[in-house]
Amino acid sequence: MSTSSSLIDKAVDQLSRFPGIGKKSALRMALYLLKQSEGETIELSESLLKLRTEIKFCKQCFNISDADLCNVCVSPSKDDSVVCIVKDFQDVIAIENTGQYNGHYHVLGGLISPVDGVGPNDIKIPELISRASAGVIKEAIVALSSTLEGDTTEYYIAKKLRELGVEVSTLSKGIAVGGELEYADEMTLARSIKNRTKMNY
Amino acid sequence: MSTSSSLIDKAVDQLSRFPGIGKKSALRMALYLLKQSEGETIELSESLLKLRTEIKFCKQCFNISDADLCNVCVSPSKDDSVVCIVKDFQDVIAIENTGQYNGHYHVLGGLISPVDGVGPNDIKIPELISRASAGVIKEAIVALSSTLEGDTTEYYIAKKLRELGVEVSTLSKGIAVGGELEYADEMTLARSIKNRTKMNY
Repeated sequence: MSTSSSLIDKAVDQLSRFPGIGKKSALRMALYLLKQSEGETIELSESLLKLRTEIKFCKQCFNISDADLCNVCVSPSKDDSVVCIVKDFQDVIAIENTGQYNGHYHVLGGLISPVDGVGPNDIKIPELISRASAGVIKEAIVALSSTLEGDTTEYYIAKKLRELGVEVSTLSKGIAVGGELEYADEMTLARSIKNRTKMNY
Repeated sequence: MSTSSSLIDKAVDQLSRFPGIGKKSALRMALYLLKQSEGETIELSESLLKLRTEIKFCKQCFNISDADLCNVCVSPSKDDSVVCIVKDFQDVIAIENTGQYNGHYHVLGGLISPVDGVGPNDIKIPELISRASAGVIKEAIVALSSTLEGDTTEYYIAKKLRELGVEVSTLSKGIAVGGELEYADEMTLARSIKNRTKMNY
């Protein structure tokens, strides 16, 4: 698909690199811009550039941030005795959006993966241990994906943190809320039977 | 939904203005940029800005163009005795992509709509008539949507062009190719029976 304008072709090519955006959606986006005021495109273009060039990583938890310390780390209402250990800053956004967690975070930036040559020192585990050594953190919730790499990383972190006297817990595994039982995979279903929860109501 | 960074929030807000892009897709797009090299964002940002500020409209057919005359108008392989009259530059892209049309275009930039106060002189109809007056155009294909505004505009253009001795045709209306008969609306079905085509094979 190519149009009568190389400017459009270029923009379509760039926009279609986004995940989930195909050539047709990208063309629709480009044509949308042409119908808006020039100011709108300038604003969009600047905010994308600023996003990429001015974003920082929190010096304490490695979450994305506008300043040296992120909003969560500086918030006085957050419980600093609990830390939730996640792989990526997306996970922080996902957990924050639940509104059910009121502690701090630690973003690893990856998972231990011997196959890919990623060891504990290649991700933010040393920083986590030195943070935990300060003695403020009492509980750590390991919130990683339930994959081989996730489980390996979880095991390693749990071992190290327990040595420092930190209580370690992990996300409960089981069937999805609102999910149909017949579509749950066998492993998940087996785990959700094994880890069944007592009903108190 | 808000994140720990106002830069991300701003970018998400900007991206979610695109048609078909919600807050969640916009966030995924913003986070995607953060994981790519800085150069990629600079390139994207520049190509969007260039698209909006450097795009021109063809002086002859009002299609979008990089130069004073668009690719179609300057192409020596296009038949300049046929002109296809469309509402928008998207329509040009759609028709060009069929690969079945080898003539020129004329982009109206709107449709006659008395309700909205849009008359023949508010869109590129005077330019079309002066173009047709030159005597090169022998046939005009009116390719407008089959709506009240489309039909009004079609009727007006056909009347004016016939006065200049130009043969005027319109797109055939009927059931969609590959479409199920039972899902076609009554008006379309009635029209496709009335305008039935003789089978020659």
